[in-house]
Amino acid sequence: MSLFLSLTPRADAWNKLKQYVKVGPREVETVSILDSVDRILAENVTAPIDLPGFARSTKDGYAVSASSTFSASEGLPALLSLKGRIRMGECTGLSLAPHECAAIATGGMIPEGADSVVMVETCEVLDDETIAATHSVAPGENVVGATEDIASGTLILSQGRRLRPSDIAALAAMGVPEVKVAVGPRVAIISTGDELVDIRESPLPGQVRDMNAYSLYSAVKAIGGRPKLWGIVQDESLAMREAIAKAHLESDMVIMSGGSSVGERDFTKEAIQSLGEPGVLVHGVAIKPGKPTILAVAGDKLVFGLPGHPMSCLVVFNLFVAPAIARWMGGAIYRRETQAILSANVASIAGREDYVSVKLRVEDGEVWADPVFSKSAVISGLILADGVMRIPVEAEGFEKGTRIRVMPF
Amino acid sequence: MSLFLSLTPRADAWNKLKQYVKVGPREVETVSILDSVDRILAENVTAPIDLPGFARSTKDGYAVSASSTFSASEGLPALLSLKGRIRMGECTGLSLAPHECAAIATGGMIPEGADSVVMVETCEVLDDETIAATHSVAPGENVVGATEDIASGTLILSQGRRLRPSDIAALAAMGVPEVKVAVGPRVAIISTGDELVDIRESPLPGQVRDMNAYSLYSAVKAIGGRPKLWGIVQDESLAMREAIAKAHLESDMVIMSGGSSVGERDFTKEAIQSLGEPGVLVHGVAIKPGKPTILAVAGDKLVFGLPGHPMSCLVVFNLFVAPAIARWMGGAIYRRETQAILSANVASIAGREDYVSVKLRVEDGEVWADPVFSKSAVISGLILADGVMRIPVEAEGFEKGTRIRVMPF
Repeated sequence: MSLFLSLTPRADAWNKLKQYVKVGPREVETVSILDSVDRILAENVTAPIDLPGFARSTKDGYAVSASSTFSASEGLPALLSLKGRIRMGECTGLSLAPHECAAIATGGMIPEGADSVVMVETCEVLDDETIAATHSVAPGENVVGATEDIASGTLILSQGRRLRPSDIAALAAMGVPEVKVAVGPRVAIISTGDELVDIRESPLPGQVRDMNAYSLYSAVKAIGGRPKLWGIVQDESLAMREAIAKAHLESDMVIMSGGSSVGERDFTKEAIQSLGEPGVLVHGVAIKPGKPTILAVAGDKLVFGLPGHPMSCLVVFNLFVAPAIARWMGGAIYRRETQAILSANVASIAGREDYVSVKLRVEDGEVWADPVFSKSAVISGLILADGVMRIPVEAEGFEKGTRIRVMPF
Repeated sequence: MSLFLSLTPRADAWNKLKQYVKVGPREVETVSILDSVDRILAENVTAPIDLPGFARSTKDGYAVSASSTFSASEGLPALLSLKGRIRMGECTGLSLAPHECAAIATGGMIPEGADSVVMVETCEVLDDETIAATHSVAPGENVVGATEDIASGTLILSQGRRLRPSDIAALAAMGVPEVKVAVGPRVAIISTGDELVDIRESPLPGQVRDMNAYSLYSAVKAIGGRPKLWGIVQDESLAMREAIAKAHLESDMVIMSGGSSVGERDFTKEAIQSLGEPGVLVHGVAIKPGKPTILAVAGDKLVFGLPGHPMSCLVVFNLFVAPAIARWMGGAIYRRETQAILSANVASIAGREDYVSVKLRVEDGEVWADPVFSKSAVISGLILADGVMRIPVEAEGFEKGTRIRVMPF
């Protein structure tokens, strides 16, 4: 048991791990686009057709040849002969001669002989057959050409994209009813620690409920992984080796939480090491919280030893496990950082990255981050904090008023 | 048919609608906390126990009475007699006298006679029975008291909260295995417009695929509603009345997209009005895009008429439908706005709110928002844009370099 770990900088630790995570997707399924929101696209989608596919009006008004409106003004409007109305969804048979127009709604198909649309707001209806346009239009004005939005063959959505409602609209517009999406890794979650009891049990003095399994399960699920709880393993060598070996066999990744602190017996590291080559890549990262983190690989599968402290556990999950899962699925990690202004000075020690919990509030149109300092707020801090801010390795803290980025929980 | 709508400011429009949406939850289900991530809590949760429940060490080190370490220094350390090791998860029978200590790991239970922990880093092991502490500690130092984190009876999570992994950890810590969460409204989605065809059909010239149904379905689903596609209804009075009446009967909310433009026939408004009192509250909102929006209520159910333009449809969804669904479920709307610096001047007309699509990029550690300007980017803009920025009603635009907020898609 080594009391003092040699600490690896976070970026180096991630780079060591990353080289063992082949960019996915490793597993793929085909789903209806109705079931695809927030899923990671597992194929490149190319436009099978031109869009809009026909010249379309972008305004309510009158389709004309732009030349019929040249030099029109409020004083001397261009008089246009109204030849009809273009019905939505119809391929109109109308063909316009110079100085003729046809009523058209937004989205309507531009008839032959027309190349632009005068807006209804700049026209006056003189009688059933005559429209006066008080403004000229240029060729193409208020019109989208047949291939102008998207040309057939264009790559529109790339593998790895997390699909949003707007992307799904585009897929629908192109007649793509199904897409291939990534299936998340099976992630085994093992809790270690002699003090842990199942959450349905009543802890005796000295015992605590196994909470990390539940936050990890939820966090894996929320980003598209397939978590499974493997229960609590006593901090004892043989039991741990057996449990982790079975979990490793039946999963794509293994997370062990607790048991990697320097103050505890090092059965976790031993057990992870027993799984095979290359074994433990990193034990100890220069971050606070999260120092006793273990990053390991055994037979193409990632194994993580996360700290037992619930906040540390989540911070390390977000720094290493979440990006690894995203990479495994072939997608970018989905984290929208929030910007905020720090409301108090926060000290830090140069040489390690600090992650400080903050609570966000909006005041005077600005987002403020209040640091949550409390050694006792182990559980209450989990509820109170909206996220964590990072203090870089070279900084000795941030002053009140600094504009910071917050990684949301 | 009125060509020019009288436009209601957005905030007024929302306030008119809001008074008809009773704050939910209206429907509730009980789920395991393993299935609760991102769900909206439908009950207040009060701590059933004290946490941590026993005095606990927050450091690896030696439990002592602080008085035994007074005036300890590197030159003159306090000598402590080591009485044993506190095992994790055990209610120790140890009782310490002055100048005695016990080895303890983070999370261990503080024994009788001790009130603080000296950190392992500030101690030297002299022999098997003697520890030299080179720093004094204060009473309570490196210890969390039994009720210090959360006292029994404290309200810890309030109804309406969207549960995060960290909240679920807290629920687990308190032995709460199940929670009541809100069930989302049944939302009927009807597409109107004679130009629309099902996405599996090949559109003829003049026709387009029914894309809004798919973005709306995805957007409703992503925030916890229960969407159902009711298909395409021709822009014809009787068909529309029949379709909307049936959808209204079998749903909690109805969304109609398309057909509410001033340039089109007003069957949508007529059909909505036919559902009953109070009927249409707002027709025309002072926003761009989204002007022809209809907000209505019939018999305690909300009915929305959204614009047919796909980007407008999503903007109006985010401004009115999403907050209405959240309110119905009893939760706050879940939108993390992103801050960014505008990379180009954007003009606007005072008197209406403008929503301008932007693409985000990170450069030199700053997030920049590039406006996406293109009349033709109807579908491509949906893919390209990361969100929209709001230009307030009184502004005539924003200058390049302005710090803006972006509502993500």
